[in-house]
Order: sequence, then C-alpha cells, then structure tokens
Amino acid sequence: MKMPLRGIIPPVITPLLSDSEIDMEGLYNLIRHLVSGGVHGLFLLGTTGEATSLQYKTRENVVKRSCDLVAGKIPVMAGITDTSFESSVEMAYCYKEAGADVVVVAPPYYIPVSQPEMIKYLEDLSAKLPLPFILYNIPGYTKHHLSVETVNRARELGALGIKDSSGDMLYLYSLIEKFKNFPGFSVITGTEMFIPETIIRGGHGAVAGGANMFPRLFTDLYEASITGDFEKIKQLQQIVIKIYCTVYNLGEYNSRFITGTKCALSVMGICNGYVAHPLSNFQEEDKRKMEKYIQEIEESLMQIKS
Amino acid sequence: MKMPLRGIIPPVITPLLSDSEIDMEGLYNLIRHLVSGGVHGLFLLGTTGEATSLQYKTRENVVKRSCDLVAGKIPVMAGITDTSFESSVEMAYCYKEAGADVVVVAPPYYIPVSQPEMIKYLEDLSAKLPLPFILYNIPGYTKHHLSVETVNRARELGALGIKDSSGDMLYLYSLIEKFKNFPGFSVITGTEMFIPETIIRGGHGAVAGGANMFPRLFTDLYEASITGDFEKIKQLQQIVIKIYCTVYNLGEYNSRFITGTKCALSVMGICNGYVAHPLSNFQEEDKRKMEKYIQEIEESLMQIKS
Amino acid sequence: MKMPLRGIIPPVITPLLSDSEIDMEGLYNLIRHLVSGGVHGLFLLGTTGEATSLQYKTRENVVKRSCDLVAGKIPVMAGITDTSFESSVEMAYCYKEAGADVVVVAPPYYIPVSQPEMIKYLEDLSAKLPLPFILYNIPGYTKHHLSVETVNRARELGALGIKDSSGDMLYLYSLIEKFKNFPGFSVITGTEMFIPETIIRGGHGAVAGGANMFPRLFTDLYEASITGDFEKIKQLQQIVIKIYCTVYNLGEYNSRFITGTKCALSVMGICNGYVAHPLSNFQEEDKRKMEKYIQEIEESLMQIKS
Amino acid sequence: MKMPLRGIIPPVITPLLSDSEIDMEGLYNLIRHLVSGGVHGLFLLGTTGEATSLQYKTRENVVKRSCDLVAGKIPVMAGITDTSFESSVEMAYCYKEAGADVVVVAPPYYIPVSQPEMIKYLEDLSAKLPLPFILYNIPGYTKHHLSVETVNRARELGALGIKDSSGDMLYLYSLIEKFKNFPGFSVITGTEMFIPETIIRGGHGAVAGGANMFPRLFTDLYEASITGDFEKIKQLQQIVIKIYCTVYNLGEYNSRFITGTKCALSVMGICNGYVAHPLSNFQEEDKRKMEKYIQEIEESLMQIKS
Repeated sequence: MKMPLRGIIPPVITPLLSDSEIDMEGLYNLIRHLVSGGVHGLFLLGTTGEATSLQYKTRENVVKRSCDLVAGKIPVMAGITDTSFESSVEMAYCYKEAGADVVVVAPPYYIPVSQPEMIKYLEDLSAKLPLPFILYNIPGYTKHHLSVETVNRARELGALGIKDSSGDMLYLYSLIEKFKNFPGFSVITGTEMFIPETIIRGGHGAVAGGANMFPRLFTDLYEASITGDFEKIKQLQQIVIKIYCTVYNLGEYNSRFITGTKCALSVMGICNGYVAHPLSNFQEEDKRKMEKYIQEIEESLMQIKS
Repeated sequence: MKMPLRGIIPPVITPLLSDSEIDMEGLYNLIRHLVSGGVHGLFLLGTTGEATSLQYKTRENVVKRSCDLVAGKIPVMAGITDTSFESSVEMAYCYKEAGADVVVVAPPYYIPVSQPEMIKYLEDLSAKLPLPFILYNIPGYTKHHLSVETVNRARELGALGIKDSSGDMLYLYSLIEKFKNFPGFSVITGTEMFIPETIIRGGHGAVAGGANMFPRLFTDLYEASITGDFEKIKQLQQIVIKIYCTVYNLGEYNSRFITGTKCALSVMGICNGYVAHPLSNFQEEDKRKMEKYIQEIEESLMQIKS
Repeated sequence: MKMPLRGIIPPVITPLLSDSEIDMEGLYNLIRHLVSGGVHGLFLLGTTGEATSLQYKTRENVVKRSCDLVAGKIPVMAGITDTSFESSVEMAYCYKEAGADVVVVAPPYYIPVSQPEMIKYLEDLSAKLPLPFILYNIPGYTKHHLSVETVNRARELGALGIKDSSGDMLYLYSLIEKFKNFPGFSVITGTEMFIPETIIRGGHGAVAGGANMFPRLFTDLYEASITGDFEKIKQLQQIVIKIYCTVYNLGEYNSRFITGTKCALSVMGICNGYVAHPLSNFQEEDKRKMEKYIQEIEESLMQIKS
Repeated sequence: MKMPLRGIIPPVITPLLSDSEIDMEGLYNLIRHLVSGGVHGLFLLGTTGEATSLQYKTRENVVKRSCDLVAGKIPVMAGITDTSFESSVEMAYCYKEAGADVVVVAPPYYIPVSQPEMIKYLEDLSAKLPLPFILYNIPGYTKHHLSVETVNRARELGALGIKDSSGDMLYLYSLIEKFKNFPGFSVITGTEMFIPETIIRGGHGAVAGGANMFPRLFTDLYEASITGDFEKIKQLQQIVIKIYCTVYNLGEYNSRFITGTKCALSVMGICNGYVAHPLSNFQEEDKRKMEKYIQEIEESLMQIKS
C-alpha cells in the first residue's frame, strides 16, 4: 500500500436485497464500476455503507467479497466503529482476515464521550488492532467532535490520517495546518463540495459519496485540483453541485443522501436500491424523478468530455 | 404479569470484571438486594446497564442469569435497542428464551431518524417481536425525541407504556395527559427527581438509577407519593437530592451517573465497580470520597426510619 | 414592599395600537383586571411584554402609566434587560422615577457571554442601579444559561431573587435547594405548568403569562399549592393545561404564546391584540378559534366555582 | 457608488474610551489607516463594531464622524439591526443624514423569528428605509439562519447583497450558486478564512475583521484571488491563519475575536483597546503576548513584500 492515503475514496454503499441479504451481483457490478472509474481506494462500511444497520456477519461478508473483487489493485478500508470496544476489535481481526488494508474508527456513538475518554479509548483500541487505522470525525452521527489535540494523539498512536465529515471547513483547514509537517498523515474530507479547497490547501483527498455513481467525475476533479486547472474545476464543480441539488435532495429525511445514492445506482442499473431500517425506501414517483436527474447529469458529463 | 407496569423499576447496572466478563457474584448480590428492597420490576440492559458497550453474548448472559435469580417474583424488562433492526429482533427472541417478560425499545441511535421513519420502524419491529414492548425516550443518547403522536402510534401497535428519560417535565406531563384514558398504558419517568410529580399527576412509576443502591428509599418515596404523605415526600426527596449532588456528581464526564452508581455499589460491597469502554474507571481518590458519601446517605436514611 | 417577593406575578403584556403607540384604555382595563384578580405583583416589560420590540420612550410610558394605576397596592417590577449597559442603567433611573419598585435583569442578549463575563457585568451593573433587582434566566431568548454559582453571586450583590424561564425543572429544583437557607431570596418559576411543584418544593411564586387573562385561576392555584389541597390543584391544573393546548398553541411560530395571549385579551374585550414587529398579527380565522377557546375555559372556571 | 458591492470591507471596530465615549483620535487614525490600506468600503456598527453595546447617540456619532473622514472616497455601510423595528427605521434616517450609503440589516435578535415572520419584517422594513440595504446572516448571534428563499425575497425587495457570517461554507456556496445570474446582488463572506474560495466560486468580497489591523494583507489576498495567483494566495493565507491562531485566539471567551482585534489595534498604536460591557478588557499579560504576535505578523508581511 502506497502512503500517504490520498485521492478519491468512495464510501461504498452496501447493495442489499433485504436487511440481512447482500445483493451479490450488485456488489460485483459496483466494485467493478468503481475500480474501472479510477478511484484511489475504497471505504467500506461507513455511514453511507449503512454499517450500523447491518449484522456483523453481513458486514464481514461485504468486506470479504469486496476484497476478493478488488484483488489488491487499490487499498480497502473498512469501518469498525461500534459502541462495544470488544466488537470493534473483533471486527478488525475479521476484516484483516477478509483482506482489508486499513480500519476506520469513529467514536463510539451511544454514550457521549469527552475528549479525555476518547483519548483513553484510542490508546486502548490502537494497542489491540491488527491493522493500521484512520480516524473518522462525523459529529452529526456520533455526537462527538474530535478535537485537533485528540486527532494529534491518534497520530502519535499510529493513525494514518483522518476523514472529516463535520462539514466545518474551518476545522478541516485547521487539521491541514496542524498536520502539514507530518507527510505520512492524511487529511481527507468527507464533504465532496470541498474537494478543490481541500487539495489546494494541502489536504490529501476525499471520501466522496457521489463517486459511487460517477467515479470519473470525482477523480477528474481531484486531478484538476492538483494541477490547478481552474477552468476545469469550475465545470466539474457545477456537476457536483447538480448532484447535491438533485440526487441528495430527493425525499425529506436527513439521511436522504444515502437513500438517494442507492436509488441513483439502482436507476443506473448497477445494483438494487434497497435501504435497511431505519431508512425508508423510495416510492415509484421518486424513482422516476431520479431517472430524469441521472440522465441530465450524464448529459452534462458528456458535454464536458466533448 | 400484573398490568399496567408501575412502581420503582431500577435500571440495573451490569456488574463486570472486564468489558467481556460478568461479575457473577456481584450480579447475584445485586439482584437479591433489589428484590428484597421491594422494587416492582427490573430493567436490564438500559443506558445505566451499559448495554451498548457489551457484546451480544454478554447481554444474553446478563438476562439469563438475572431471570434465573428473579425467578418470576417481579417482571423483568430487557433493552433490545440497537442500530440493526435484525439484531434487535434476534435479541428479543434470545431474551424471551432467557426468561424476560418485556423488551424495551429506544430509537436506533446512529442514523438520525425522523418521526415517520420511527413510526415505520415501530410498525415493522412490533410485528416481529415475540414479547410485549415498552418504548424508551432518551434523546440525549439517541438524538431522537419521540413525539407524542409517535408514542400514541406505538400504543396502537401494542406498546405497554413509555419510559421517558428526556428530563423535560412539560413533555412528561403531556404524555400523562395524553394517555390518562388508556389505563393499560404506563407512563414511567426516567428522571428520579420527578417521582412525586409523576405519580401525583397520574403517571405510573419510575426507572430510578438510585434504586440500584437504595431500593427501599425509592419504593418508600413511591408509596408516599401515592398516599400523598407530603411530610415524608419532603424528607425522602432530600436524600434523593443528596444522591444527585454526591454520587452522580463525582467525576467530570457526562456519564458520571453510571460510573458513580457502579462505584457506590462497589463501595457498598455489592459488586465490582468496573465500567466498560468508553467510560473511564474511577481512581482511588474518588472511591474514598464515595465511601464518605455513602456513609452520609446511610446515616440520613437511618434518621428517617427512627 | 413586603419581602420576599412571592405569589403570582403576571408578565404583563403591553397593549398596543401600533409598534409605537400604547393602547392606553386597554392598559387601564388590564391593570384593573389584574389587581382586582388578586395578583401579588406585576412584571412589566418582560419577554411577554415585548419590551425589546418597543422604543425606550414607549417603555417608559408603560411603566409610568402602570405605576399610576397600581398606586402602590402591589409591587411593580420592570425589565431593564438590554444589550447596552448604559441603556440598562438609564432605564433603571427612568423606571424608578416612574414609580417601579424593582428592576429585572436578564443577560445582555446579542453577544454571547460566559459566566465570568456575566458575573463582571452584574458586579458593575448592581453598583449603578438605583433600585433593587431580580435576575431573569431565559436562555431560549438570551442564549445564556445562568449557572447556580452566577445566581449566588447576584444574591451576594443584592439580588432579591431569580425568575427562571428555562423550563428545566432540575435546574429550578437546584435553585430552590441552593437558596433554601436564604429567606430573603425568592425563587420564582417562569413556567406556569410548574406552579404546584415550585411551591411544594419551597419556591416562592410564578411569573405566569396566563394570569394576564385569568388572574384568579392562578392565585387560586398558588393558594391550593400552599395549603396542599391536592384535589383543587388537580382541578385547576386541568385548566392550565387547557390554556397551553389552546391559547398558547394557536398559530405555528415559536412565540405564539405572546400572540395568543394578546389575541385572547382582545377577544375578552380587555385590550387591543396588536403585536409589534417581528411578531405577526393573527388573522380573523384565528380570532374566531380563540373566541371558542376562551368560552370553553370560562365555562370550566365556572364549573369549579359552583 | 459603484455596483455591485465588492472587495474587502472591514467591519470597523469602534474605538472607545468608555462604554459611552468614542476615542475620537483613535477613530481618525483607524479610518485613515483603512482608507490608505486600499479597502473597498467600510462596514460600521456590526458585531465587531460592538453596535449593540452602544447607545443610539454614540452610534450616530460613530457614523457621522466616520463619513466625514471617508469623505466619499469609498462606500460606507452602517448596521441598523435592532430588536425594535421603529428604532431600526430611525437609525436608518440618522445614518443617511450622517452620510452613510447603505444600511445593513440582520434579523431582530431577542424574540426568535421564523422565516415567514422574517420575510414580513423585511417587506415592512424595506418599504420604510431611506437608503439601500444589504442583509446580514449571523445565526450565532441572532439565533436566526436566513434561508436562501428569504435572501431571495430580500433581493426582490431591493437588497444589494448579503453578508454571510454563518461560517457554513455549503450555505455560502449555495448563495453564490443561487444568485450567480443576478449581477447587481453581492454575496460577501463574513469568514475571512474563506476569501479565496468565495472569490474563485463567484462571490464578491469579504467583511474581514483582520483588515482592521492589516488592510493591505486582505486587499492583496482579494486581488490574488481574482487573478488566480495561487502562489501568492498560499503565502497570504498563511498569515491569515496566523492571525486566527494568535490575535483571535487570545483569551478564553467566545467573542475574543473582538477583544483581540481591539487589543491588537491598541498595541499597534492606532486606537484605544477598551471594549464595552459585556465584554471583558484584557489584562497586561495578554497585551504583552499581543505585542509579540503583532511583531511576528508584521515580520511575515515584510518577508512577502521583499
């Protein structure tokens, strides 16, 4: 595995037939779609991957099957975030066995933790992990915002980087600033609207949910950000904005970016669109709207290429 | 099981030797202490029971062992709250097998859910449960505040009641008001400071963490509230306030009421005080303070009796 | 003025013809209605009085005219809360001249203040005030929650008490507990649903918005709480709950308790219902609903008396 | 006045000798410093200008004196945000008389307002204003987040633009996107860390507090953002980050960016550092730290020029 972790790393959705059954054909299509789209790594079993809605055995199958399909071409990260310390450790061993390269650790999310408790947690956890880890900041889901000091302690404990999904750009910039002299430590945004900003300021990459559908759009945007091609950045960003205003904006519930992404992939014929409880599956009417959105986005992508 | 559920129902702490080992002798002592203290039921594997910090097999053992010890003398409820729908259902079957009478359901706590998603979740879940259930509102931990309408839908789906740990007395009163004409539906407060208010307004009981240590104090307070013995209520409330200001106020982290309760039980010789990750175990200095607190509270209890 | 401040103290609404014109006849009717209704004091220019929406000269007229009408029969308090320290001091001098007995001080509400800044503010302000003051905790409006320590510092600086409109009963109880040995210091709830609880626990009174319309209901509830007449408390509370569910629940905006109270008083023929910017005045349809509500409440009040 | 409003517009601090006395010499120095530093406009009496802490007559003097000093060289905007609608209108007339070109309107900040109430407020206010206005979004202070639809309504009512101090970059981007086809409507960030992002995405300028001290740094950064000189942007941003980590980070209270900016200007010999209540003035020790910070920043600025 090349270091530091960088580039476009989709938070892979988990294709499902039901709460407990993986859509195996869909997973095959999706992984192939992503790898051939040029992404730089995969992040399995994050928030977008509905990890917490799945049973452990289902999660293990997702990692195993995905790693088989990737066959070492790009690094595979897998989330082990859990409220139970012991279960997180067990998952890490499972995922190593299944072929994952890195595990991803967000704070335990039921009992609210303070920064000192989080540091103690990371000290104890990192000592037991059989794989390298990256931190994952997503306070909207875990109720805990990792302080820059806590992130730095994680770095000392061996973390390879941090994925920040706080949506707080000042915090993201302060991470980039703090760790600019630690070349092995990656700062990766989880907010796909911030890709050019992150790269230009010195960050390393993005966990971009939209790359599930349009991997090439995001890898092109990443490349344009590295080379400073502002004309191209502007064109590609317009399409990212379009995705926000359509795919992520269908339905009325908070987590509609997950439901929307799965619906889009289903409309594109890549995999089943089923979302597990507690999310609600889209109705036919929404699917027809999504078809129109996808067509428009694909047309915009065509125009840029030509 | 007598209906409706009422009285003092301690949220039983889980005596532990480590994150994965139950303190079996401690559990034996604790259950005996509670049953002989006159409590009206037990609530296993709630927030105070650190359910989310324990692996499923550990949780199952807790329920099994506790039900064996209770031997049907009082109803046993057990929490099946989980982010995975399938795991919640599996736990319910396990706990029924282990001897539990009722399961307790809070909203799934990672992905934020809207009220309509919560209602859909309850409709699907209640259809699959092998035991009756009560709802559990604890927005500080689940990020979701159950609306009165959602609670009413749960009642229609067969819920036996609701335990409210929001700490919001106006909400608690609106629940009592709403369900006063449904005699089979219990409104139970999770805020032990609100016991007389809850009972006098027409509520049914309390899940009172302090009853782990002093069951008789709380059952006496419950009885005094029913009979309207205001002199006695005043005396007993002073001791409840004392518990808040000492046992629940030691240490500086949010969940210190859990750590404090376990430390107090350890100081009282009932069980081990170990708390699982992500909570931090108390240091010696705190334990010495706790010894002093417990002694003072026991002296106050003596004075009332004499 | 008798000490400590206690009983039912309505937060008097300000009858208006427009943003800048007082409804003088309405003010006359309202003050007469309140004094003859047996209230124990008046609180002018609080949140319910729309103080911050009025210009200083208008506020001064409200205090002057009201004090003339009260003619010393009961204590008059007037809010001087402002973002400008100098303006607060100026208002205090004005209101003393106009005949007020006590001024009411909430934290300045634009710039967020910390507890130490609030203490410094109170030290400097109390040194300049020509009248005694009471503190006013209303974090939903000021963004600042007064800590028990800050309240205690205010007591040392001469505060006669605190009005708590946080809606947080645990905080209210902790105030009562903290100040139970300071007989000159009043703890007054701003949440009218908490009147019996406040009085029975040892608090002193309530700033009850509903007393604008039904002063006798609230003074009766206060008396019943003092004598421990629980049958009567129950009956009267049912009507308070009714007010919450109707008068305060009409319209969809946060501050509908202000608009609703003014609309109710207008329907009752006591004063004009105009609310100043930024609140929105009710439409005809709402007024018709309000007429029905008032009629129902008045009938319930009749039944109790007979 | 040239349209649209664009460039670097400092939120001018108000030099004070006490809560009620303007430091006239300081104000003279500061305005001269800003105009000669090349800023494109001034924003008087915003949050950084401590408007809400000052009495109306003081505010009027600030506008009058500043406009005299500017003498029409650049546009002057002045804040009329107030909880009283009538006072806002009065201020607008005063400031027009005093020479201001534009007034700035944030939501009234005591009573929480809904979006429909805010729209009604803007409709009524805009009809009475004698000067053009720009909107001001600062939810951390006003508790109200202006929706994109409300901003659009303001545009229809004649608003010249919006200053966004939410710190929420996704919102800022959505404003730029929404109004990109309305060339007369300016989108101006209130977060100085976002200057290059704002300009490159198509926004118009920044209300940058740091421009009080270092106007040339910010106008250079604005120019570099327009021409796309990324090497220069990087160099200048390093100094902006330095200001965040030093000047704005001294002291422990939320509003330390105001106190810090005033202390820095005092250390630079430009004006008195006094802050009005409820803010706390710095102690000597902090001033010595500030001297060191200013020296370091000035050295960094020198190195870039050479």
